[in-house]
Amino acid sequence: MTPFRLVPETFPDMPAIAGLSLGTAATGLKYTGRDDLMLMRCAEGSTLAAVFTQSDTAAPPVEWSRERLAEGTAISAILVNAGNANAFTGAAGKQTISESTTALARSLGCAPEAIMVASTGVIGEPLDAAILAAEFDTLIKQDNASWQDAASAIMTTDTFAKGASASCMIGDTPVTIAGIAKGSGMIAPNMATMLGFVATDAALPAPILQILLATATRRSFNAITVDSDTSTNDSVFLVATAVAAHHAPTTVDDPLLDDFVRALDQVMQDLAIQIVRDGEGASKLITIDVAGAPDEDAAHRIAMSIANSPLVKTAIAGEDANWGRIVMAVGKAGAAIDQAQLCIDIGGVAVAANGMRVDDYDETPVTAHMTGQHVEISVRVGTGSGTARVWTCDLTHGYIEINADYRS
Amino acid sequence: MTPFRLVPETFPDMPAIAGLSLGTAATGLKYTGRDDLMLMRCAEGSTLAAVFTQSDTAAPPVEWSRERLAEGTAISAILVNAGNANAFTGAAGKQTISESTTALARSLGCAPEAIMVASTGVIGEPLDAAILAAEFDTLIKQDNASWQDAASAIMTTDTFAKGASASCMIGDTPVTIAGIAKGSGMIAPNMATMLGFVATDAALPAPILQILLATATRRSFNAITVDSDTSTNDSVFLVATAVAAHHAPTTVDDPLLDDFVRALDQVMQDLAIQIVRDGEGASKLITIDVAGAPDEDAAHRIAMSIANSPLVKTAIAGEDANWGRIVMAVGKAGAAIDQAQLCIDIGGVAVAANGMRVDDYDETPVTAHMTGQHVEISVRVGTGSGTARVWTCDLTHGYIEINADYRS
Repeated sequence: MTPFRLVPETFPDMPAIAGLSLGTAATGLKYTGRDDLMLMRCAEGSTLAAVFTQSDTAAPPVEWSRERLAEGTAISAILVNAGNANAFTGAAGKQTISESTTALARSLGCAPEAIMVASTGVIGEPLDAAILAAEFDTLIKQDNASWQDAASAIMTTDTFAKGASASCMIGDTPVTIAGIAKGSGMIAPNMATMLGFVATDAALPAPILQILLATATRRSFNAITVDSDTSTNDSVFLVATAVAAHHAPTTVDDPLLDDFVRALDQVMQDLAIQIVRDGEGASKLITIDVAGAPDEDAAHRIAMSIANSPLVKTAIAGEDANWGRIVMAVGKAGAAIDQAQLCIDIGGVAVAANGMRVDDYDETPVTAHMTGQHVEISVRVGTGSGTARVWTCDLTHGYIEINADYRS
Repeated sequence: MTPFRLVPETFPDMPAIAGLSLGTAATGLKYTGRDDLMLMRCAEGSTLAAVFTQSDTAAPPVEWSRERLAEGTAISAILVNAGNANAFTGAAGKQTISESTTALARSLGCAPEAIMVASTGVIGEPLDAAILAAEFDTLIKQDNASWQDAASAIMTTDTFAKGASASCMIGDTPVTIAGIAKGSGMIAPNMATMLGFVATDAALPAPILQILLATATRRSFNAITVDSDTSTNDSVFLVATAVAAHHAPTTVDDPLLDDFVRALDQVMQDLAIQIVRDGEGASKLITIDVAGAPDEDAAHRIAMSIANSPLVKTAIAGEDANWGRIVMAVGKAGAAIDQAQLCIDIGGVAVAANGMRVDDYDETPVTAHMTGQHVEISVRVGTGSGTARVWTCDLTHGYIEINADYRS
């Protein structure tokens, strides 16, 4: 078996999505020698779904996109810039979006409301619309960028570009899903945000698409954590170009969609896990499974409590089978579990069962498992039906270096 | 002005409390060359209040003490051991407590139920009652230990012993309050717990004492965080020996108690801040004030969100005036605030006001403030009456070293 490698060696081969085109350009706003602007255009008749940060200090681009989505506006394009988050910029930040979408809409021949926006980068710095607008011609003319070009143009402190794709069937019709994402801490040094852009050629009404995205997000982007911090700009978009000529599903539960749901989970989980693998300072990927909780929410809360615990994450960085810290993290989750039923496995080895260390506990295989780049923790908290799986990374000196030392 | 020093140079001079005696002993269970057992005995007629961890995996000593407190048992003594938390030890852990309190009660001539227990140390290791019991004679005979002896005997990874005292008046009668605490991470390497033991010679009925302790705890031990992790063993006890002959207050709101409440706040906040100052790897104390929140709970939630943010804590470690991370942490608190009213001061200098960076922002004085050992952040989130003050420390390489590197 090939050992798990935290950082992928290559960008995956990814298929084009019919009805979708990508363009990239360089504004020079913050970075030199790289693109920092990305335009995703989609065919007339495309539908859109999106989910956004729950932050009370959500940035103007999030507010703009959330409002357009709520209005059910037809979608023509998504404009993304990296290097300036246009966050905590007040009325000036809204004005920037108004000006840039108006200018871009004129060139594209659509309404400004048909353009979604996403930004990532410094918080609190004004963003000049003219700097973006100067590159709109380039973005529109050079519309044959690859997924890798697009994934690279939206990076901030990411150390690698993130993409994933899958194919599936809706009835007898083959359908493709492909997407890109960025993110490495919830916020990197002066940078912000997890962003995801997923597209498919499926033909799905917006209300159904929204439910599919929300469900898949719960199992992917909302099931990861690097440092428990939530950005002002987090956004995930799902565009369906409606080019594929498949039978129309009647409801979101239509069995016709089963394979699509599976493929969407696969793409979004792949992207989400890539973000964790690029977590600031990460040396290990950690998968945490919780079972036996009263319900799915409780299971998720327990899993996230383990995943966000600095003491669990530092123990794993130190390759230390310090399972008492997992007991602590389960306890502080506030899920009202009975510790007499708590069981903990690490790397498939039983460590604790029914509220105590197992009788014949041998640390050797657990410690061996922890020397690898993928650590698996499995917790059973009772006899309920609630389960959850989340992913995180360890907490290392690298995290402190990236976030505290970059001025020195 | 003397610059603020994170680590105190000496243990404070502390008064004895009439009706209270302290004893310490060494079991050799985990440490060599130091005491690890502490007995606090109190006069007949003493009353007790206590607060405990909210963890679902609370340790057997917490369960024992919580049950005795609920029964309203008369209090004779508190027995504390350091080095083994007797946590996640199931039925065996309960048996240990039953055996050790029975043995100690026999020597003290009281009921086992009159003895409270607290433990701190490794999670998940059996604790042998006989090892504790072997030292009970010493504990009882050598009952003239100082506060510093007692504070030292309960330490685990603490780097200094923690004590504080204050005097006050109840009516015309002088009253004394003194206490000790331990803790440096919510859990240190294989160790656990924040513990606090406060005593007074005041004569206060248990129901009033319990409300006074709960209120003071909210403003002290529950207003600090080192790493957001909550231990299985956290406990704070307040003993009133009833030796002082003051007028009896009629209710907890009796103005007769005003000065006592002030002094109790002073002692408990002093102890709580000492724990933060001894935070694992800490190089700076951080005070966070929130005002203008809808209510006190919302203010506390926002303050704790800032205090627990790894990105805020690493920025302060790096002496970086990265205030965008404070915006982020306010936003993720889920307190439904309006960012257009958000104002942020650092070290008394306005950084952001009404949802934007201040116009004439000059980073120089802010950066200068951040080079000190005490960083003050003040946030106003609206026009509500809710305020909160919490304390934390920065997140440094030292934290990673203590928690991840100690096996290497």
